[in-house]
Amino acid sequence: MYKLVLIRHGESQWNLENRFTGWHDVDLSESGIAQAKGAGQALKEAGFEFDIAYTSVLLRAIKTLNIALEEMGQHYLPVERHWRLNERHYGALTGLDKAETAAKHGEDQVKIWRRSFDVPPPEVDTDSEHFPAHDRRYANVDPSILPKAESLALTIERVLPYWHDEIRPTIQSGKRVIIAAHGNSLRALVKYLDGMTEEEVLELNIPTGVPLVYELDENLKPISKQYIGDPEAIKAMMDAVANQGKAK
Amino acid sequence: MYKLVLIRHGESQWNLENRFTGWHDVDLSESGIAQAKGAGQALKEAGFEFDIAYTSVLLRAIKTLNIALEEMGQHYLPVERHWRLNERHYGALTGLDKAETAAKHGEDQVKIWRRSFDVPPPEVDTDSEHFPAHDRRYANVDPSILPKAESLALTIERVLPYWHDEIRPTIQSGKRVIIAAHGNSLRALVKYLDGMTEEEVLELNIPTGVPLVYELDENLKPISKQYIGDPEAIKAMMDAVANQGKAK
Repeated sequence: MYKLVLIRHGESQWNLENRFTGWHDVDLSESGIAQAKGAGQALKEAGFEFDIAYTSVLLRAIKTLNIALEEMGQHYLPVERHWRLNERHYGALTGLDKAETAAKHGEDQVKIWRRSFDVPPPEVDTDSEHFPAHDRRYANVDPSILPKAESLALTIERVLPYWHDEIRPTIQSGKRVIIAAHGNSLRALVKYLDGMTEEEVLELNIPTGVPLVYELDENLKPISKQYIGDPEAIKAMMDAVANQGKAK
Repeated sequence: MYKLVLIRHGESQWNLENRFTGWHDVDLSESGIAQAKGAGQALKEAGFEFDIAYTSVLLRAIKTLNIALEEMGQHYLPVERHWRLNERHYGALTGLDKAETAAKHGEDQVKIWRRSFDVPPPEVDTDSEHFPAHDRRYANVDPSILPKAESLALTIERVLPYWHDEIRPTIQSGKRVIIAAHGNSLRALVKYLDGMTEEEVLELNIPTGVPLVYELDENLKPISKQYIGDPEAIKAMMDAVANQGKAK
């Protein structure tokens, strides 16, 4: 039997400003830093030990992981960063205020972009700063596979190869894994692990900064899952995520 | 031609308390955090880009690296942690106050332990918390090669295999390397690169938190080396290092 821990990064500056972030590389807010510390403390108190950590190439996930590892006294672990664990790419919506976008395009259209399974937002222009090929951290990736906009379906498609090729074999080799990533890259993993339908994953809201612990059997099928932390805080954060994107 | 950047971690809590630290895993002081930020800013202003970073398995070096990478906006780089880049192991002196040790054993004896090339301090007991085999971060290392006390000579002996087997081939493959490590593991690298004598390396004091930039030819022989930062601050820190270990 294996254990796997997932953490969604703490609140970012743009979460705070209610803007579509996606692959834009924003920092954690003060509250996000506190959430990351809280996640590390909760895991430490529960006695978790890991052998390797995975994260995206975006600061808010990397920093959440660094802070949590330091709180646990496990900063010495190997950390693998990979773009396939990045947040969903929000295309031409990147950087826009969510409430303003709702006022402009209508709350229904924004809800479709945010909450439909397979309707991607408008694509980012290839000359935009938000087109990943302009960023040297993706220099080793064929530009033709870098996203210009992603639905949740497209996000899942590019996350899962990293699970299958890298993370799963590592877990099966007996290494204890922690993954710090993003709302939608974690939804991809949870949908896959739990065998969720498209409808079910759309209802799934993973709270920020709260470790989600899976127990997996020898075939990596979930035996149990639970959040580690204060239940009221978890519910409040889930409600907050569900309420984003409504016009104010 | 290649560039290589070395950074000694910023001031730690135990530097501040003037205690022998070695492999004991202390945090940076507030001033050490500021030094790490300063190092990152200096490298950013000088336009440095890296492809991979190396550090030890000790928090003060890992955190210096994390902070500097974040300041440079290069937090997405792969980071390799390895125990061979750890500080010199101070054996049974670990945790002792430097001035007290000087008062007890005499300043001359302390100077020998601190500043001789090949006289190791007294060994740590194998049941001490400071014997590395009790720490799970070294669980994959044969206990018989883990140090109980190191002279500078012994430190150099265990640092250099990692240079030869891992860092050097990486530089020669064209990757731009930054190493965040410790006073004595960096002395090991500098002695080797510069072809210093034993006497010369004993006079070498690497300041904390100041990037040291090497230009290397195709055979990795140094063409030039310089510190990046404010010259007066660099000199002040070098003097401070040289004055440690004197009885107060």
